[in-house]
Amino acid sequence: MLPGGLRVVTEHVAGARSASVGLWVDVGSRDEPGFDPAARGAAHFLEHLLFKGTARRSARQIAEEIDAVGGDLNAFTSKEHTCFYAHVLDSDLALAVDVVCDVVLDGVMAAPDVELERDVVLSEIAGRDDDPEDLLTDDFDDLLLGDHPLGGPVVGSEESVTEMTRGVLARFHGAHYVPSRSVLAVAGNVVHAEVLDAVAAAFGSRLDGAPAAAGHRPDAPAVVKAPAERLSVREDDTEQSHLMLGVPSVRRGDPRWEAQLVLSTVLGGGTSSRLFQEVRERRGLAYSVYSAATGYSDLGVLGVYVGCAPERLGTAAGVLRTQLADLARHGITPAELTRAQGQLRGEYVLGLEDTSSRMSWLGRRELDGPGAPLDLGEALARVRSVTVDDVAALATELFDAPLTAAVVGPYADVDDLPDEVREVAE
Amino acid sequence: MLPGGLRVVTEHVAGARSASVGLWVDVGSRDEPGFDPAARGAAHFLEHLLFKGTARRSARQIAEEIDAVGGDLNAFTSKEHTCFYAHVLDSDLALAVDVVCDVVLDGVMAAPDVELERDVVLSEIAGRDDDPEDLLTDDFDDLLLGDHPLGGPVVGSEESVTEMTRGVLARFHGAHYVPSRSVLAVAGNVVHAEVLDAVAAAFGSRLDGAPAAAGHRPDAPAVVKAPAERLSVREDDTEQSHLMLGVPSVRRGDPRWEAQLVLSTVLGGGTSSRLFQEVRERRGLAYSVYSAATGYSDLGVLGVYVGCAPERLGTAAGVLRTQLADLARHGITPAELTRAQGQLRGEYVLGLEDTSSRMSWLGRRELDGPGAPLDLGEALARVRSVTVDDVAALATELFDAPLTAAVVGPYADVDDLPDEVREVAE
Repeated sequence: MLPGGLRVVTEHVAGARSASVGLWVDVGSRDEPGFDPAARGAAHFLEHLLFKGTARRSARQIAEEIDAVGGDLNAFTSKEHTCFYAHVLDSDLALAVDVVCDVVLDGVMAAPDVELERDVVLSEIAGRDDDPEDLLTDDFDDLLLGDHPLGGPVVGSEESVTEMTRGVLARFHGAHYVPSRSVLAVAGNVVHAEVLDAVAAAFGSRLDGAPAAAGHRPDAPAVVKAPAERLSVREDDTEQSHLMLGVPSVRRGDPRWEAQLVLSTVLGGGTSSRLFQEVRERRGLAYSVYSAATGYSDLGVLGVYVGCAPERLGTAAGVLRTQLADLARHGITPAELTRAQGQLRGEYVLGLEDTSSRMSWLGRRELDGPGAPLDLGEALARVRSVTVDDVAALATELFDAPLTAAVVGPYADVDDLPDEVREVAE
Repeated sequence: MLPGGLRVVTEHVAGARSASVGLWVDVGSRDEPGFDPAARGAAHFLEHLLFKGTARRSARQIAEEIDAVGGDLNAFTSKEHTCFYAHVLDSDLALAVDVVCDVVLDGVMAAPDVELERDVVLSEIAGRDDDPEDLLTDDFDDLLLGDHPLGGPVVGSEESVTEMTRGVLARFHGAHYVPSRSVLAVAGNVVHAEVLDAVAAAFGSRLDGAPAAAGHRPDAPAVVKAPAERLSVREDDTEQSHLMLGVPSVRRGDPRWEAQLVLSTVLGGGTSSRLFQEVRERRGLAYSVYSAATGYSDLGVLGVYVGCAPERLGTAAGVLRTQLADLARHGITPAELTRAQGQLRGEYVLGLEDTSSRMSWLGRRELDGPGAPLDLGEALARVRSVTVDDVAALATELFDAPLTAAVVGPYADVDDLPDEVREVAE
């Protein structure tokens, strides 16, 4: 750890000719409502605004410097993490570190740029609204998590973005986007000492500040209040009906996290999964059907998605419900466990071949703290240690509870939905 | 080249722990109308159907064998190429070659599976119809290319898929999916001799067939008949208006191909591009704006996309038109050329770091024949040799011609569109 609390983690990747540099900030949309009720969407808004210029570089210069060396400069914001990153040829490491540091810490946030980017963010939200699957995911999280800070979309709402002020953005930035809350993760054809040199040159006196802030994520699992209504519908003039259903589940650091990965894999994690085989292969009900487990520091979400013709929605919902009930009652077979473990092993190893995904793994692991696996070996060992009984117990706990369901499609209200959908959320 | 005409190309990737195996078939949607008017969508339909089972494996076994080793098995179909591929740990090379070969050459195409997959493909098409940007791209190609075999969507239409018969599929498969029309491309932690052993074991007597077929793509550039109407509108109840405009452009093997890459990069290829700077950074008109050049064997398409609020569509269309006219009149600056060359160099090098993209490069290059660059070095040399005058001449040729435009959004017909959009296509 450097002065000012900045943590720097690097990994040399054999054979790589590139370097991926990410400045990870321990902030996301969940930090907004507690900071200021007017801050909904501030982290994502800042992801835009900070690229509009720094004390040393205009927006155009930022873009030109990275494009000129063929690099990729971008950022993403999630509910608990923010990352500004550059992917460049290894010889451009110092430039990448300098630009990323400059953008995150020294954005000028000029008032006219706040107005321009407000329109761009509103355009991004409108684009999300034109994608029924994206919209559905946000609706489902809203319904399931309610007033918990993890509820609500990362981008904020049309209203919150329209009313966002420069003052709120600047205060939110000042409170969160500081070295003591950040991790610089670098993976590629790099050596640690050279990264430290680049950091010293880029950050300079910005490392004279406060020492590392303590982790500010909850230590204990959240208790999510059951929603008053467990079924929502958004009317949309779509060709397909889009359904997501699921439950609050175990958080990232929970000892059962890997059992949950296995459970979600067996349920709907690949082409041999129960849902793919039953919904698509055997019945031809849908092109897209899957299950996904998302982990946060204090809770998790396990959701199942299907997109199908409106006249098949009832049948599809019935199949999903039956599959969840069967897992709750009978768990999984030893053959399914073995296959899911093999699948997760492959996903980990194959998913960490490029420098960008390694950089992300490093940054996220450092922010997520002591509960996270130390390295790939430990992550794989945890998956290997899962038993059939672990998965069965978790399936019973999760799927014997009431399900929550969200729908986007050609329905005026919930009374318009097929009976099987309403029964799922009863 | 092996007996039966199968070509095998491999590349050892230092540091990789995986192998990407792709069986590339020299077939795509453009081969359908000339084969049989009822074959529209056959290549994509086969991409689904062949996974439903072979003489040796059921659909479930295919999925389970690859999931058990943590691999990824999938396929894609484009207008001129089809690729079935597996991404696996290096130790599973032989399995991957065997499964890919089995699926592509020995699919049983059982009649009940044709019915099941018909519904799945129709569901995929409905999903495409729910994504206005995807729909727009297909509309634009339809309008621009008209009756040329490259016009028409890869997935076919709801009608053609509904009426597809097993007979047409089987004949289309028999004519195209043979070793003499295929390339097996492998990249990763592999050695060529071991790949050949795996091929011998997997293909066996299937290599006793005909020798390599000659390339069957056109040698000469196509002459695309100008569409009678150069403006189309699809009414859709979307939040944003989606506009694509462009021109037929130079084909893949054309000596001006790399000049076209530079032109498209300067126009809308990155955050320092003219369109990004003018439309998003300076005016805040849209979140998404870009330019893309697509190359086929006998023609190319250069298209520009913007998605924005309906009340800004007129302004955005005016900006796009002005930018194209300015390029036609003044070309690009030396600084833009240098930056675009650096950007393309980075995109090539960074885009070829993982084994999947290297496998794709190998397979595509082999199918595309003698005009394609031999290796990365030659590709980069071609980009370096582009001059400001090359780009200016091409810009004048392309953008002094009439533009074609397609719109998806809340418009009943073309008379509903802002004047600036109608003027673009006059």
